[in-house]
Parts: sequence; C-alpha cells; structure tokens
Amino acid sequence: MKLISMKEMNMKDKFFNEYMQLIQNHVIPYQWEALNDRIEGAEPSYAMQNFRVASGKIPGKFMGMVFQDSDVYKWLEAVGYTLMLNPDSKLEQIADGAIGDICGAQQPDGYLNTYYIINGLDKRFTNLKDNHELYCLGHMTEAAVVYYQATGKRELMDAAIRYIDCVDSIFGPEPGKLHGYPGHEVIEMALVRLYEVTKEKKHLALAKYFIDERGKQPLFFEEETIRNQNNFHWKDSYFKYQYYQAGKEVRLQDKAEGHAVRAVYLYSGMAAVSKETKDEELFHVCERLWDNITKKQMYITGAIGASSYGEAFTFDYDLPNDTVYGETCAAIGLIFFARRMFEMTKDSKYMDVLERILFNGAISGMSLDGTKFFYVNPLEVIPEASEKDRNKNHVKVERQKWFGCACCPPNIARLLSSIGSYAYTKTEDCFFMNLYIGSDIHTTVGGREIGIKVRTDYPWDGKVIISFSQEEEAEYGYAIRIPGWCKNYEIAVNGERVGQEPVQGYVYLNRTWKKDDEITCHFKMEVVLNQANPKVREDTGKAAVSRGPLVYCLEEADNGADLHRIRIRKDTVFTEQYENNLLKGVVTLTCEGEKQTAAGWNDDTLYQPYQEPVYEKKTLKWIPYYSWANRNPGEMLVWARVDS
Amino acid sequence: MKLISMKEMNMKDKFFNEYMQLIQNHVIPYQWEALNDRIEGAEPSYAMQNFRVASGKIPGKFMGMVFQDSDVYKWLEAVGYTLMLNPDSKLEQIADGAIGDICGAQQPDGYLNTYYIINGLDKRFTNLKDNHELYCLGHMTEAAVVYYQATGKRELMDAAIRYIDCVDSIFGPEPGKLHGYPGHEVIEMALVRLYEVTKEKKHLALAKYFIDERGKQPLFFEEETIRNQNNFHWKDSYFKYQYYQAGKEVRLQDKAEGHAVRAVYLYSGMAAVSKETKDEELFHVCERLWDNITKKQMYITGAIGASSYGEAFTFDYDLPNDTVYGETCAAIGLIFFARRMFEMTKDSKYMDVLERILFNGAISGMSLDGTKFFYVNPLEVIPEASEKDRNKNHVKVERQKWFGCACCPPNIARLLSSIGSYAYTKTEDCFFMNLYIGSDIHTTVGGREIGIKVRTDYPWDGKVIISFSQEEEAEYGYAIRIPGWCKNYEIAVNGERVGQEPVQGYVYLNRTWKKDDEITCHFKMEVVLNQANPKVREDTGKAAVSRGPLVYCLEEADNGADLHRIRIRKDTVFTEQYENNLLKGVVTLTCEGEKQTAAGWNDDTLYQPYQEPVYEKKTLKWIPYYSWANRNPGEMLVWARVDS
Repeated sequence: MKLISMKEMNMKDKFFNEYMQLIQNHVIPYQWEALNDRIEGAEPSYAMQNFRVASGKIPGKFMGMVFQDSDVYKWLEAVGYTLMLNPDSKLEQIADGAIGDICGAQQPDGYLNTYYIINGLDKRFTNLKDNHELYCLGHMTEAAVVYYQATGKRELMDAAIRYIDCVDSIFGPEPGKLHGYPGHEVIEMALVRLYEVTKEKKHLALAKYFIDERGKQPLFFEEETIRNQNNFHWKDSYFKYQYYQAGKEVRLQDKAEGHAVRAVYLYSGMAAVSKETKDEELFHVCERLWDNITKKQMYITGAIGASSYGEAFTFDYDLPNDTVYGETCAAIGLIFFARRMFEMTKDSKYMDVLERILFNGAISGMSLDGTKFFYVNPLEVIPEASEKDRNKNHVKVERQKWFGCACCPPNIARLLSSIGSYAYTKTEDCFFMNLYIGSDIHTTVGGREIGIKVRTDYPWDGKVIISFSQEEEAEYGYAIRIPGWCKNYEIAVNGERVGQEPVQGYVYLNRTWKKDDEITCHFKMEVVLNQANPKVREDTGKAAVSRGPLVYCLEEADNGADLHRIRIRKDTVFTEQYENNLLKGVVTLTCEGEKQTAAGWNDDTLYQPYQEPVYEKKTLKWIPYYSWANRNPGEMLVWARVDS
Repeated sequence: MKLISMKEMNMKDKFFNEYMQLIQNHVIPYQWEALNDRIEGAEPSYAMQNFRVASGKIPGKFMGMVFQDSDVYKWLEAVGYTLMLNPDSKLEQIADGAIGDICGAQQPDGYLNTYYIINGLDKRFTNLKDNHELYCLGHMTEAAVVYYQATGKRELMDAAIRYIDCVDSIFGPEPGKLHGYPGHEVIEMALVRLYEVTKEKKHLALAKYFIDERGKQPLFFEEETIRNQNNFHWKDSYFKYQYYQAGKEVRLQDKAEGHAVRAVYLYSGMAAVSKETKDEELFHVCERLWDNITKKQMYITGAIGASSYGEAFTFDYDLPNDTVYGETCAAIGLIFFARRMFEMTKDSKYMDVLERILFNGAISGMSLDGTKFFYVNPLEVIPEASEKDRNKNHVKVERQKWFGCACCPPNIARLLSSIGSYAYTKTEDCFFMNLYIGSDIHTTVGGREIGIKVRTDYPWDGKVIISFSQEEEAEYGYAIRIPGWCKNYEIAVNGERVGQEPVQGYVYLNRTWKKDDEITCHFKMEVVLNQANPKVREDTGKAAVSRGPLVYCLEEADNGADLHRIRIRKDTVFTEQYENNLLKGVVTLTCEGEKQTAAGWNDDTLYQPYQEPVYEKKTLKWIPYYSWANRNPGEMLVWARVDS
C-alpha cells in the first residue's frame, strides 16, 4: 500500500479546503511569527532564536522547553504539505531560510540539538528519559522527508541523515554503544518514513533497534536516573516506567498505558517497522494494542487519554467525560497508527476509527477561524467547574491562542494539510478511496494512468461521485470503503448498480476503466443514537447522537445551561437541517427532549424524599462536536441521559 | 445553653458505648504508642520526642510536621473525655507524664512550640500563614480545658494561659503589635472554651481579635509572604487567600470556601465569639455560611469538601461522589459549628445536620475495630480507579493505620468520647435531649436536681424511654428533639400521649417532674428514598436510601461488582432486618432491584446503536454507610440510579 502524494491531487473539498486554506493563510504564517517571538502578548517561543544562538549567529542562551526545536520541525512539515498543495514561492523562501538557520547549527559530527549545543555538548545523550533529543530528531526527520518530497530540496534531509548517522554511531546493540531509546517516541516512525525514501537499511534497522531495546532489563532509564542522580518524576504513579511505554519489553505489552501521545507514536513506529520488516509478531503486538485502545479506552469522539495526570491512559472502560484529557496530539497520533495498520491489512476497521477521530476529536482541536487551539478535548464541560474545580482545570472552555508547549497547533496543521494522502492510497493493482474528500487526482496504479474527479458534500451528505478523466483505458481495481457507520448504501457504475459484497469493508470494482466512466456512491446518512458498553460507568443510562461520521453535542448557546437536566427519549426523531450561516455551515439536528424542572424544589433544599422528577418538553438542538466552543463560552455535553 | 459534663453521665448506649470502649481500650493506647514512635512498621510521629528535645531532656532535632505538637494535644483532649467517662488512674498517670514533658518545654515568657524552640525562637511568629503555631496553641488550649475539667489538674491549663498571655502581648490592634492571625484556625473556638472556664475577658477578646483581623487589607499573609520571600502555595488556585478564609474580611464572607477543616473551625470560633459577645452581625454571618454549606455544599452523609485539591470546598451544588474529599476532620468541624449554632438558637435544624454527620460522614472515618481510619470519606468507590486514576488516588478502599498527618484519628477519638455532652444540654429552666443516646444522667437544671435514665436502641429503633429517678420533684422543661428525618412520632408521659406541636423542632414538656415519671418517645423509622436538588449534577437520575439518621450504601461484598449497572425502582419496598453477626450488628435493608446485563453486547464493542438496555432482577442489600469497608475491599455506592 502506498500513499498518493499531495502533489498528485488538487483538493476540491468544501469541508477540508476551508481548513487547508486556513492553515496556509493563517495558521502557518501565525506560527512562523510565533516561532520568531513576534506575537504580541504571547509567551515567546524562542524556537528560531535557539537555532541562531546555537549556530553562533547571535549571542544568547537556550530558552524555552528542552524540545523547543521540534516546533520548528512540525511547522516545516506542515509547510511541506501546503507547498505540495499550493506552491508558494514566498513561503518556500521563508522555509528555506529557516532550514538555513537550522543547518547552520549542525555540528561537524552531524549532531543538531540546540539545547545541548548551547548548554554543553558533553552532556548530550545523557538524559534520554527526559530531554527529548531523539524526539526532536524524529520531527526533524519527518519534516525533512516531507520538505524534500514537496520541493526536491535535500538540505534538511541531508542534515537529518548526517545527524542520524551520528546517532547510529552512538546507539546500538554493539558493546560500548549506548543501549538507549527515546523518552518520547516519534523517531521510530520517522526513520521508517526516511527509509521509504532512502531505502537505506540502516535507517530501518535503527528504528527497529529503538523498538526492540525499549523496556529491556536492566532498564536503561533506571540506570540513567541513577547515573544522573536525578528524579524519576513518575515514581509514585501507577504507570511508573510505562509512562514511557518502557516498563516492559514492547512485545510483551498488551494494554495501552502511560502518556497517550508517546504511546500511539510508538505504536505507529512499531506498525511501520513491522510492515517494512514483515515482522508478524510485532504486527500482532500492534493489533493487540490497537484492540485495547479502540475497544476499551477510546471515547466516541476518537479522543484518547482519560486522565490529565501524565496526559495518560488509565484503565479499560474508564472514560470520564468531564475530566478526560483527550489531547489533540494523541488523537492525531492514533490516526498515524490507524493509517499504518490499514496499510498492512486493507481493513476498513482502521479507517473507521481514523475517520471517527478526524471528524471529531482531532479537528475539535482547532477553532473554525484557525486562530485558537484545544490541547484537551472534553465530552462534557461546565464552565464553573473548569474554573473552580482543580480536577477540571485542564478542561478549557475556550480554545487558546498558543501554548508554551505548542505541540497541538502544528500537529493539526500537518495532519490537515496532508489529509488527501489519507483519503487516497494505492497498491500495484488497486486504487483505494478511504475517505470521501473532493479532489482531482492524477496518478498511476501499477504504471497505468488514472485521472479522477471526486465530488461530494461529505460529511453533510453521503453522496459521492467519481468520474474518470484519463485518456487511456486501463484495468485495475477501484476500492471503495463502506463506512462503518453506514448501514444502507448504493454504488453504481455508469448508472448500473453494483451488487458485490464488501471485503474487509471495501467494495472492490475490478474492471477496465475508461474516460467518462462514473461511479456514484450513496451512503445513507441517518441519525444514530449510540450507547456505550455497559462497562463504561460514565455513560450508563446515557446516549450520544451521531450522523454519518460526526458525533454531535448539545451546547449551552442553543439549549441553555444545566445540560445535565436534559433527557432524550430512546425513540427520539431528529430533524436535520443544513444551516449555512451557523458555524461556517453545519447540519444541525433538532429533536424533542425533556428538561427536569425545579418543581417541588426550592434552592434551600439539598435533599428531600424522592418524588417523581418533573420534566418539561424542550426542543433540543445538536451541533457537530468538532464545532463546539466557537460561540459564547458555555456548557457542552455529548452523552445525554436517556429516558428508558 | 450549657453542656452537661461527661462526668454527670453514665453512658449506657449500645451503639456508642462500643465506640467509647474502643477508644479507651484501643485507640488511645495505640495513639500513645504512635506518639512515642513505638508502632512497628508505621512512620514515626516524633511528637513526644520533640517535646523532650525542646525541653533539653534529650538531644535531637525537630522531626515531623510543623504542627506535630497538636497530635499530642488532641490525644490529651480525648484522654480527658475518657477519664470523665471512666476514671483510669494508669491512663491519667501517663497523661500527667505527657503534660510534664509538654510543660518542661515551656519558655520563660510562656512560649511553647517545639518547632521554633528547637529551630530558633528568633523566627517564631514569622510565618503564621504556613507554620501552625497558633493552631497548636489552639489544640493545647482545648486539651488543657478538658483535662482540667476531667481531673481538676491545672498544670496544662496554666501553661496554656501563660502561652496565651505571651501571644496576647505580641498580637493585637495596638501599634507595634503583630496584626496577624492563624493560617489554620482553631484557636478562636479554643479561646472561647477557655473563657468559659476562666471568665477572663482577655481570652474572649483575643478570640474576637483573630476573627476580626482576618482578611483585612492590607493582607497580613501577603505582607508576610513578601517579608519572608517565600512562596504562596495557592497563588495559581481559584481560592487564593480564601484557602485560609483570609481573602476578605470574615464579616463579608457568604460562601464556604477554601480548606474545609480550616473553614468550619473558623466558623465554630465565630459562632462561639458571637454567642459570648452577643454579636448579632457575626451571628448572621455564621447563619449565612451555615446555610451555604448545608444547603449547597454538603453531601447527604454530612461530608464536606468536594475537592482533594486544597482539601477544599469548590462551588455550590458541586458534589461529585467519586472524587470527593469529605475529610473526617471537616465533618467533625461541622459538628463543632452545628453545636455552637444550636446553643444560640435552640433550633433543631442544627442538630439534624449534626446527627446526619455523626452517624454517617464522621464515624465512617473509623473502622469497626477502632484500628484503622479514613481521611477521605467517598460516596462512590471503584477500587481500580483508586489505584489507577490519579484524580481518585486520595480515595482509599481500605482505612489506613496511622497517617503522617495524623489529624483524623484523634479527632474522632475526642468527638466520640465526648458525644454524651452533645446529646444532652440545658438552660436555666430546661433540659434538652438532642440526640438519643442511652445514659444515666445526674445533673441540675437551674439548681433543681434531675436524675434520668435514657434507654434506646437508636439508631436501629426509634423507641426512646426516659425514666426519672431524682428523689425531689421539680418543675422544669424537658425538651425533646423531633428528628428532621421523622415524619411520624408519638410522645407520651406516663402513658398519656402528649399533643403539643414542636417549636423549632423541639417538643417542650414543662411540668413538675417526679421520681418514676416516664417519657416514652416513638420516632417511627421508615426507609426513605432520597433525591438531591436537580442542580446537583452528580446525583441526577439517582436516589440514596436512608433509615432514621443513617444513610445506606451498596457494597460489592453484598451485591457484586459493577454497582453502576444497578437500578432501583422509585416505589421499591425495603425489608428491614437486624443482623447481629454482621458488621458488629446493623439493620440491613433488602429490596428488589435490577442490574443491567451485557445482553446484546460483547467485550469487543465499545459503542453501538442504542438498544433498550436489558435488566435482570437482582436482590439488593444495603448496609449503613458508616460500616462500609469493614470487609473485603470492593466497590461502594450511595447514590444509585432510579428507574423513572
């Protein structure tokens, strides 16, 4: 399975083009200003300054987080994708300048991390557990690959390769080398991406080494902590070294544990290595961890990481809606994992989760105007609790402009600016349509040219029209994913209904395709009342509403406060309406519900003998979850009580 | 209103005598061992050692918490009460020895705090915000008063008075004096207790000063923090200086805020000062704060302090059952507050709350064998969450042996060993029966002798028989509290039913009482299904079960795990049964309920379209809340879902 390059696409999607334009026109320029400390009122980033200090261009000391370099790399990766989509010489010039600053700091042996260059190279690689050197290199590598693919320019990639050669000379199984691995994973999947370009076995081998060494006894992090006489921050925690997924060997792990972003980044790397090395055992470990997350630890929005403490997984079926962490980056990391699992299996179940995350827990991280971001994506919000209850302090009522630890904004930028390559992939003999995103695509399938136009109003409407435009007819498969949420669909080729059953969620249309052929898909979008497994304590007696890939929510702006007093009927009928002027255009859902009144109560009574609660009828209005918190701050609720 | 001394009582109560014997025979001896660091496997207390070091008897440095002295004082207070109940010369000798060690450390000017005596007297009273000097003096004073009342020995009281004189010379409104007040309140109510014995106006005046100075601008704590260049731990918190109830002047406060124990200790002191100074304004402030707590911030068990962060109040109607703090000491502090409010008003509503706390959120703090203690008293427990979710780490599944900060065990001891004096109080012309606790009492009412025997099986049975035994007949009132939970009752004197209506919850029987007169009260105990105000988010759609003063709960030991899947019917009929061999003898309740099955689900599905949940019938067994966690560790639940 291969990705279709964003360069082979011309995005024509009403829903995502808006996002991609925001990213190109607002997010990327804004983030560049932020990286250069030119945003008034915001905490400076120091990220670009650090490179200039490290290269000796300007005097100064290291400032910001120990992993500050990575913000620049994530920004560059997003720039790479947008340049693929829309060449922009001015932006490319700025990026080239940034790359110049980065490479200017590279040391003769290839090392490149501003924290240690500025603070003393003698200390490099002495605190892998806490200090994110290999993490920064991972993001450097990802940016380098994408920027090379976008522009053909090798400067950053060559720098990354030199740095990796340096790392390779220091880490490894050989005696005398460091038997270490990163405290924060990402380099594993980055090395595989590099390997896909370089085909250098050593790049893949290093990724595999970092995975296989992780968690081996004696524990590297434990020995490192003793050597440094430093603190093990998580020593009193439940997860201990599993915070870093390093409490036991990776192949022995069967539950997603610890810091959620680290976890899914590692699993993505494991999946990538298992694909390239055809490591069946490792693949089964990935499957086991995937199952644990998606069947026991994932919110209906695709959010993961139930606890703010350690930004971490907790335990099976523990999914509190109001204290959830659900970091945007973790959701995006699970998308990375999903894609790699899909590439190995062609199984739509991975794309079902990917789509769920994308349309809910991932894009909820960015405001509709592209200027503000959520780190935490809750499923239930009470503004007073966010203010006054420390357990809910991390749950923000409004998206924030920029973070001291600014991981989420550039992560959203790089995801959304590359979303086309998630939608469309190919094998030697088949073209895969995984997501429904309007595009004009010109690529090849096993050497045969393919040109298609995909048009759709997804996620608002389930109709998708694919028309073929290549001049030469050619035989290959066209695989259409049947979304997991869809119970009724019709697919027709040139008006003729196609009857075959899907295989692993894909309908494969194998035929000779010629110009002006047309495939029409109708995925019937119905409003669905969802319930959670009875083991999920927090959702007992409740239901969540969805339509197509979108999870819905109630907001105070539409339904007043005290959303906990609302109850819906299990047989509720919903009215759907596309509202052009609301939240940049959304399909809203309306239904008749009930709200518990204060009848029989006064404010001075806290407890009294049970009386049948009195409900009054109330029309409820639901909006897509991702679009919440784009109006006045207020309550929000995904799981509402059901009258049963 | 005056208390009846425990010396005037001979406790004959099946329920409380058991507790008092545990305290005398196990808790007090055990705590003495703990205070002397003789408990194997337990963290040493160092509390007695510190006094010996401070007096120069042994070399050493200060060890333990800055307020370690107070543990000894609380222990001595409990000893005082038990000596009133049951003279015990061996115990008295030990206590006298401890008092000798304490007084041995007293400085020539009266100062007596081992932390500063050992670490440098030049620093004394320089960090009132954090260092608990006046708090320790408060507990010293309370212990001194009780020990004097119990034994007639003045050594500790004289020492306390000398120390207070020292404090009085340093603190006050006069120029040149420190305009400070304690970071942790208790001295306010202690000084009033002392005043009740000494009738020294200066003792009352100092209490009033600490109350009125609190929160005045410029803020003493703020200036102190600047002087010390030290940290204000709560600067990023919501409550800030209200953590100490010092964010604004006491008379301007209208919501219970900050650390719950500090808050209710302060309010108790305010009530005591308002009573003794006849300060109407201050009384109304107390009323306002009382109303805020009991009508908006108190759990049905009487627990207060919704959040573990700061062990604090959060906001109105915020009463999460599974992350509650509900510290035992805070519940006890609210009892102190209730008693003082009652003393001023003769209003049964204060006793209703007092009784609710006593039988639920207070005694839940101690195991039935008197060896283990809860700091936190939750209303919903999931063992896996307590282990793996940091937000619930403070919620323990089992009571603990002894705490590093050992405030709760001696607090329970001093409450329960003095419980008789809560039950019975008097005015010049009336004897009050506030709680139903079996006792033989010999006292006077306005100079007239009264001798009564009270017999009851409370809290299991609502029948109370009072027989008069004094030789001389005398005219006075006998006031009987009609419990707030009781809707049907009968009171008869010598078999003749009494018809008068209660006034503020008390039926006043004014007559000439003579020997062998008998009052019989029947308070009909019915099982009540309770509901919470609809503003209480966490209890929506749920109900709690109570019978008489006792709140009930479901435990895993009786009902299996997954208590969240249980549902009761609003018209459930309960069967009551006294089980002699269960939990030292309790009335259990049984009802037919339902439990949601996993029908239609498999473990591999996390979300699916809504289906009517399938319930199976299940017999539910309820035990009194206070008795939970005395068997195998497991789940516990107070608020259960109701089928509505």
